[in-house]
Amino acid sequence: MSGTTAIRASAQRLENAEELIDSVETFIFDCDGVIWKGDSLIDGVPQTLDMLREKGKRLVFVTNNSTKSRKQYGKKFETLGLSVSQEEIFASSFAAAAYLKSVDFPKDKKVYVIGEEGILKELELAGFQYLGGPADGEKKIELKPGFLMEHDESVGAVVVGFDRYLNYYKIQYGTLCIRENPGCLFIATNRDAVTHLTDAQEWAGGGSMVGAIRGSTQKEPLVAGKPSTFMMDYLANEFGILKSQICMVGDRLDTDILFGQNGGCKTLLVLSGVTSLQMLQSPNNLIQPDFYTDRISDMLSLKAASV
Amino acid sequence: MSGTTAIRASAQRLENAEELIDSVETFIFDCDGVIWKGDSLIDGVPQTLDMLREKGKRLVFVTNNSTKSRKQYGKKFETLGLSVSQEEIFASSFAAAAYLKSVDFPKDKKVYVIGEEGILKELELAGFQYLGGPADGEKKIELKPGFLMEHDESVGAVVVGFDRYLNYYKIQYGTLCIRENPGCLFIATNRDAVTHLTDAQEWAGGGSMVGAIRGSTQKEPLVAGKPSTFMMDYLANEFGILKSQICMVGDRLDTDILFGQNGGCKTLLVLSGVTSLQMLQSPNNLIQPDFYTDRISDMLSLKAASV
Repeated sequence: MSGTTAIRASAQRLENAEELIDSVETFIFDCDGVIWKGDSLIDGVPQTLDMLREKGKRLVFVTNNSTKSRKQYGKKFETLGLSVSQEEIFASSFAAAAYLKSVDFPKDKKVYVIGEEGILKELELAGFQYLGGPADGEKKIELKPGFLMEHDESVGAVVVGFDRYLNYYKIQYGTLCIRENPGCLFIATNRDAVTHLTDAQEWAGGGSMVGAIRGSTQKEPLVAGKPSTFMMDYLANEFGILKSQICMVGDRLDTDILFGQNGGCKTLLVLSGVTSLQMLQSPNNLIQPDFYTDRISDMLSLKAASV
Repeated sequence: MSGTTAIRASAQRLENAEELIDSVETFIFDCDGVIWKGDSLIDGVPQTLDMLREKGKRLVFVTNNSTKSRKQYGKKFETLGLSVSQEEIFASSFAAAAYLKSVDFPKDKKVYVIGEEGILKELELAGFQYLGGPADGEKKIELKPGFLMEHDESVGAVVVGFDRYLNYYKIQYGTLCIRENPGCLFIATNRDAVTHLTDAQEWAGGGSMVGAIRGSTQKEPLVAGKPSTFMMDYLANEFGILKSQICMVGDRLDTDILFGQNGGCKTLLVLSGVTSLQMLQSPNNLIQPDFYTDRISDMLSLKAASV
């Protein structure tokens, strides 16, 4: 579930979109900063997706956001007027459940969740028993001398994602399961430093919740979302596609582009999100996509001449 | 504020306490597992401390517990019938304030605290302005679209210690200060994985709170408590003692003994706390103290013959 990155030659500005489109059969899109920004669709997105579908390309949408399920995420696309099916959406909440399936996590074991509703919904759909999540958001610890927190010994995995209701109860519960239940897995939906709860600023992300559990267990998590290659492997298996036939499109170098590179895919950075041209070209940046362009709708104009 | 550890020869069982006592002028004691366990004094402690004082040894008590100030900690000694002055106590709450003093932290800047009362009291005594701490324990974030959390731009340091009231408000506030205020320091009182809130079990420690902020800032903290050498350097300067003239006594290999070794001191492991003889002698353990013994009162009997 991890990969290595070789230093690549500098990214090229995308000049011949037709060639890129013809060279792959699947486009994986990150959502925030690529498809939308907060609650606004980025210019030209519907037309671009239509064009790619017309050319027979498979479209997949991935997000490290674990607070929503695939279904809930589908509603966001719908609200923005985009026609995307649930099966095309891969949120890290789904990835965590898919990971448990991939390791044949026993159905008689339970999952303790530090995170929000999306994770619970996906675990439920996958047929796993869980506890924790929002239900533990108001729980407090009674610190009388001799007090002991009991924990469920049948918890075989702790899934940690972004949780705006993180508290010490959850930290201790998750820590006890990982430290004391033999073989208990520690799964992170993602380790993003920041997330976009609102458009107005960057907010501490899933990396905080994962960091809290890492700090008390001194264990490294298995990461289900980007930039771990688990989702890429899953997609390749599920759809029977070659990774070299995938183009990963994203706005973040250290998650999206690294995710694509770890998976052996082609990569396209768009400058419509958090990464500026200056950041891409900084000598401190070691992550170079194959191509970069301002926004995905550039694929329309950059192919118009040759159509 | 860090050090390296060479692999040492295996620890020797303490056989000649007289020789050890005569070879140093200061004993630094960890508290929990050495002086007391939870709320009970460990057998023979008062007599041992008296004997060492009679022999003219300086005694210092260090703890990574940051929830209490020196003064509050002094009361714990008093309750247990031990006569220890505030000046002999070095809690990591004090160490954080001492660190800020050592770097001439400007008095017109503020400190944001993720932690409990001990840190606030020590900052106050040191003359620093602070905000956060328990006062932010009940604060919630209102997640309306466009919502922005304002933060104080005069915060020049974030001090993070154990905080049983950790919440997302504090995580985001501390993260904003570190990410957005130029030069803002990130100081950890300690990174202990577990702590002893109650005797009945191990509880997630300061490492969780520090891990949460590390996860969202992707920065490493400056650690004021054990095993960083800051406190040792401070003690050596403050009292004008040579580190080779110090014996560090503790029950934990990866904090106490490493702390002593990082500081160039003699080290004595006691088996009255979390470390068993089996753990010490495990081939996986790379941290070897100079000596080990069951409890500090062994120093009484192991010197009796030669007195």
